Amino acid sequence: WNKMGFQGEHPVGFFLVIGKSPQSVEYKRIFSNVGNAYDHNTGVFTAPTNGLYYFTFSTYGYSTHAAGAVLVKNAVRQISTYDSPSTDGSDSGSNAAVLQLSTGDKVHVELWDNGQVFDNLNGHTTFSGFLLFSL
Amino acid sequence: WNKMGFQGEHPVGFFLVIGKSPQSVEYKRIFSNVGNAYDHNTGVFTAPTNGLYYFTFSTYGYSTHAAGAVLVKNAVRQISTYDSPSTDGSDSGSNAAVLQLSTGDKVHVELWDNGQVFDNLNGHTTFSGFLLFSL
Amino acid sequence: WNKMGFQGEHPVGFFLVIGKSPQSVEYKRIFSNVGNAYDHNTGVFTAPTNGLYYFTFSTYGYSTHAAGAVLVKNAVRQISTYDSPSTDGSDSGSNAAVLQLSTGDKVHVELWDNGQVFDNLNGHTTFSGFLLFSL
Repeated sequence: WNKMGFQGEHPVGFFLVIGKSPQSVEYKRIFSNVGNAYDHNTGVFTAPTNGLYYFTFSTYGYSTHAAGAVLVKNAVRQISTYDSPSTDGSDSGSNAAVLQLSTGDKVHVELWDNGQVFDNLNGHTTFSGFLLFSL
Repeated sequence: WNKMGFQGEHPVGFFLVIGKSPQSVEYKRIFSNVGNAYDHNTGVFTAPTNGLYYFTFSTYGYSTHAAGAVLVKNAVRQISTYDSPSTDGSDSGSNAAVLQLSTGDKVHVELWDNGQVFDNLNGHTTFSGFLLFSL
Repeated sequence: WNKMGFQGEHPVGFFLVIGKSPQSVEYKRIFSNVGNAYDHNTGVFTAPTNGLYYFTFSTYGYSTHAAGAVLVKNAVRQISTYDSPSTDGSDSGSNAAVLQLSTGDKVHVELWDNGQVFDNLNGHTTFSGFLLFSL
C-alpha cells in the first residue's frame, strides 16, 4: 500500500534544457518539474524517497570541443556521453540509467573538463528523470 | 485511488518505426500500442488523461541530408535531434522529454525542413512513449 | 488491484555496462537489478510477468569497426543502433523500445557481425529496462 501510494502523493519528474557553457551548466527552460525534486537553481536532483529512478540525458556539441556530459550520483560518475573533436561538424549523444537511490541522494549532469555542449530553442541538450517505484 | 488506478485501466504505451521520407512521415511497424492513444494513421499521440508522460525518439540518417526530427506538442516544438550534412557517412541521434499534458493534448514527431531520416527492418528510427502518472 | 500491486511486489529494473567485445558481450558493472529479471551471467532479461516493458541501450564505438548493437526479443531483432566505419574518430548511438512481453519472453542486446563496442569506467555503453505495467 505505502509503496504503491507514493507515486500519486509525491510524483517525481523533471525535464529541462541545458545551455551552452564550458564547465558549468546553465538551465534555460524547464518543461515539467512535478514533485520539485529537481532544483533548477543548482541543477541537482535530490531523491525524495528510497526507490528506483530512471534518468536520461542528451548532449549536442560542435567538433571544436570535447562534447558530452557525465551523469553524477553523489559526486561519483555513473554514465556519460562523449564525442571527441573530429572532422564531423557536430555530433550528439544520449545515455540512460536506472539507479537505486536512497532518500537525499543527489544526481546531476556535468560537463567534461574543457568540454562544451550547445543548445538553443530547438532543445538539443536535455536532462530528464522520474521515479519508477519506491523501495 | 483514482490516480493510482488509472494506469491499470487506461495504460498508455506505444512504439513504432518511422519510414524514410522527406517532410512527411510513414510508419512501417508498430510494436505495441496499449491504450490506443497513438493513432498510426496520423502519427499523432493524443493524451487520454491529464498527466505526466515520457517520450523518446531516435533518428538515423545519411549525411547527404539534414537528419533528425522534432518532437512537437500542440504545434509547438519541444526538443529535437539534428545532424548536419558532413563527411561522416551516417549519423544517429536520440532525445527524450518528460511532458505534462492535459487531456487531448497532441504530440508527434516531424522532420526538419528538407530533412530525411532512414529506416529499414533493423529499426533505426523509432518513437516511443508512455504515461508516467495521471495528475 | 492485481495490476497495480505488481510493481511493488515484483519491481523490475536493471542497468549495466557492456564491455568491449567482438560478437559476445561482457558485463562489467551492474548498477541496479531490482527483481532480478536480468541475469548478469547470460546477459538475458526474462519477463517475470505479462506486461508492457521499456528498454533502452546506448553504444559507443570507434570508427575502425561497425559500432552499435541490436535489441533482440526471443531471437527476433527489434531495434538497433549502427555506425559504419568513417573518418569520424568515434561515435555513439541510442535507441529505445516499448515492448509487450509475455511471461518468460527473453530480451537481450547483441553486437552486429564483426561489430565492436567500447566501454570503460565512464559508462558509455549501457543497457537499461523496466516494467511499465503488467497486463
